[in-house]
Amino acid sequence: MQAIVQTEEKNTASLELQEVPTPQLQPGEVLVEVKAAGINRADLLQSQGNYPPPPGASEIFGLECAGIIVDAGDTDRQVGEEVACLLSGGAYAEYVAVPAGQLMPIPAGYSFVEAASIVEVACTVWSNIGMLAGLKKGDTFLIHGGAGGIGTFAIQMGKALGATVAVTAGSAEKLATCKELGADILINYREEDFAEVLKNKANVILDIIGAKYLGQNVKAMAPDGHMVVIGFQGGIKGELNLGLLLAKRGTISATALRSREVADKARIVKSTVENIWPLLEDGTISHHIDHTLPLAEAGAALMKLEEGSVTGKLVLEV
Amino acid sequence: MQAIVQTEEKNTASLELQEVPTPQLQPGEVLVEVKAAGINRADLLQSQGNYPPPPGASEIFGLECAGIIVDAGDTDRQVGEEVACLLSGGAYAEYVAVPAGQLMPIPAGYSFVEAASIVEVACTVWSNIGMLAGLKKGDTFLIHGGAGGIGTFAIQMGKALGATVAVTAGSAEKLATCKELGADILINYREEDFAEVLKNKANVILDIIGAKYLGQNVKAMAPDGHMVVIGFQGGIKGELNLGLLLAKRGTISATALRSREVADKARIVKSTVENIWPLLEDGTISHHIDHTLPLAEAGAALMKLEEGSVTGKLVLEV
Ligand SMILES: NC(=O)c1ccc[n+]([C@@H]2O[C@H](COP(=O)([O-])OP(=O)(O)OC[C@H]3O[C@@H](n4cnc5c(N)ncnc54)[C@H](OP(=O)(O)O)[C@@H]3O)[C@@H](O)[C@H]2O)c1
Ligand SMILES: NC(=O)c1ccc[n+]([C@@H]2O[C@H](COP(=O)([O-])OP(=O)(O)OC[C@H]3O[C@@H](n4cnc5c(N)ncnc54)[C@H](OP(=O)(O)O)[C@@H]3O)[C@@H](O)[C@H]2O)c1
Repeated sequence: MQAIVQTEEKNTASLELQEVPTPQLQPGEVLVEVKAAGINRADLLQSQGNYPPPPGASEIFGLECAGIIVDAGDTDRQVGEEVACLLSGGAYAEYVAVPAGQLMPIPAGYSFVEAASIVEVACTVWSNIGMLAGLKKGDTFLIHGGAGGIGTFAIQMGKALGATVAVTAGSAEKLATCKELGADILINYREEDFAEVLKNKANVILDIIGAKYLGQNVKAMAPDGHMVVIGFQGGIKGELNLGLLLAKRGTISATALRSREVADKARIVKSTVENIWPLLEDGTISHHIDHTLPLAEAGAALMKLEEGSVTGKLVLEV
Repeated sequence: MQAIVQTEEKNTASLELQEVPTPQLQPGEVLVEVKAAGINRADLLQSQGNYPPPPGASEIFGLECAGIIVDAGDTDRQVGEEVACLLSGGAYAEYVAVPAGQLMPIPAGYSFVEAASIVEVACTVWSNIGMLAGLKKGDTFLIHGGAGGIGTFAIQMGKALGATVAVTAGSAEKLATCKELGADILINYREEDFAEVLKNKANVILDIIGAKYLGQNVKAMAPDGHMVVIGFQGGIKGELNLGLLLAKRGTISATALRSREVADKARIVKSTVENIWPLLEDGTISHHIDHTLPLAEAGAALMKLEEGSVTGKLVLEV
């Protein structure tokens, strides 16, 4: 099959289409013919040598795709089924082997491209905010980077769950985007200290900044609050005031999707389809695709992501 | 009624028995005639001016007692019922007003003194390890200060839940006590680094040290591990490596019992009685009383606690 291969370590520009062996199915896996593959910031990090695939995962890039089952292996799935897939790798290719528990239906009304654009973000946000932190009606939900890929999804999901949504972003323009999506409290982090605005009020916090915001996040946390860190755009090591955390009876988690075991991914995929798919299908949560590119241009796509000019999702068409 | 009153701020020696007004019942409260009141380290801190009662709580010391209902107020409880009580304060007295949700039966076979000795530790350990961290069969459970009041209870509970129990303590003698109670992995923290012994293995950690152990605790944590900090014997502010926490998909909580709202305490009390009382009644978890003193000697009791010569629980008899 054809797949994207990196020919030079740490060089994003060296991604090129090559002939490679079609994946062999392991027990419990199906073979999917990839129609569209979503592009993630993690792929860019991987191309820079900073995010190696977990042990046992495909060396091929790509954490999400949509396509058609062409070999059901030893599973009870059907050849010809159209599916979206959460992957540990392997999407930048014509075919990918997928554990059956990581298959999702295509949301009704979604194209392959649209489906491939939503899998990672939906599973990430739901698993952290719905399943782990248990966001509920009436909560105040603080989202850092509200205008980003994770943020735009999280705002809509937060509103759908009945939360008051607060966001941070770096410009009035980005905050306007957040407002359109439903955000209630808009904080320009270049002008205001979010910890002052939200002091003791945030029941749930979705953080992509890490160390730089750790102290402020604990300050913003409400009693029994839960913050989940999924990114480190502001560094990894920060000072934690455990006394203040105890005064709030607070909880801090840090998680990643990719490193989870197959059974754990299946648990997340199942819950995401149950809870999020209806919101995609009735338009409560919308997707936002910047543009699509052919598979062969994967390297160019990642470089575009690095430039910072992309506002929605990039998707590769196979 | 007679109650212990502190006559000089921050002076533990100035606790004395005085005549004070009997508490007025609020809606949902009952009046309990105190037979025995357990002594906690928190009381010592309070006498030193370091742990003020939460807003609305009694100024009188004492977080746990056992006694007899003498006025059921507007509740459906019965006058004459023998009860153990979780309190925000007020136990060092002849009578205490108790929200009905904080009443527990006396465990079968327990005296008032024995019941008063077990309430705080049972609710603390169960709420954190059972309810919050969800310790389960097969888990490795790390307990710091295994020979302390919290530690000795936690070891027995951990074994009852089917966990492998690891403890830290500062001497061979204390570790021998832990072993007798069922601990499987014994670590003398003066001689060994617990983080090396348990690297990536501890599914649940009960921490009373705080800042000083923060880094090592994260290192010891297993994938999807949960550590709960309830004390700060090693300081409050420490460096947190969020990157390492994310690599484990780890969770850190810090909690306290006393500051919780009435409904939250009721939730904990109910679950503790359901899950822990049977283990007290069949002897799976034993209590350990150092000795009892009359109510009038509360000050002397706290000073004994401060000296560090007490190995079990001190209980006041009223
Ligand atoms: N752990 C996981 O499982 C997982 C899964 C998916 C993604 N992630 C991580 O989540 C993060 C976000 O991903 P994404 O796809 O949403 O990226 P993205 O679309 O590039 O969004 C990042 C956002 O961060 C904002 N930002 C930058 N500095 C900020 C600051 N100091 N305060 C507040 N916001 C700030 C940017 O907005 P401004 O321009 O307004 O600053 C931008 O909108 C990435 O770090 C990614 O690696 C983790
Ligand atoms: N947040 C809450 O709701 C709550 C409720 C109850 C208690 N607490 C807190 O929990 C802590 C323990 O209470 P307790 O009643 O069990 O006190 P305790 O009986 O005095 O026990 C404390 C233990 O800590 C051990 N220790 C001291 N330094 C240590 C170190 N560096 N590493 C490991 N162990 C160490 C001591 O053992 P060695 O002599 O062997 O060092 C001692 O056995 C206290 O700080 C208390 O305030 C919190």
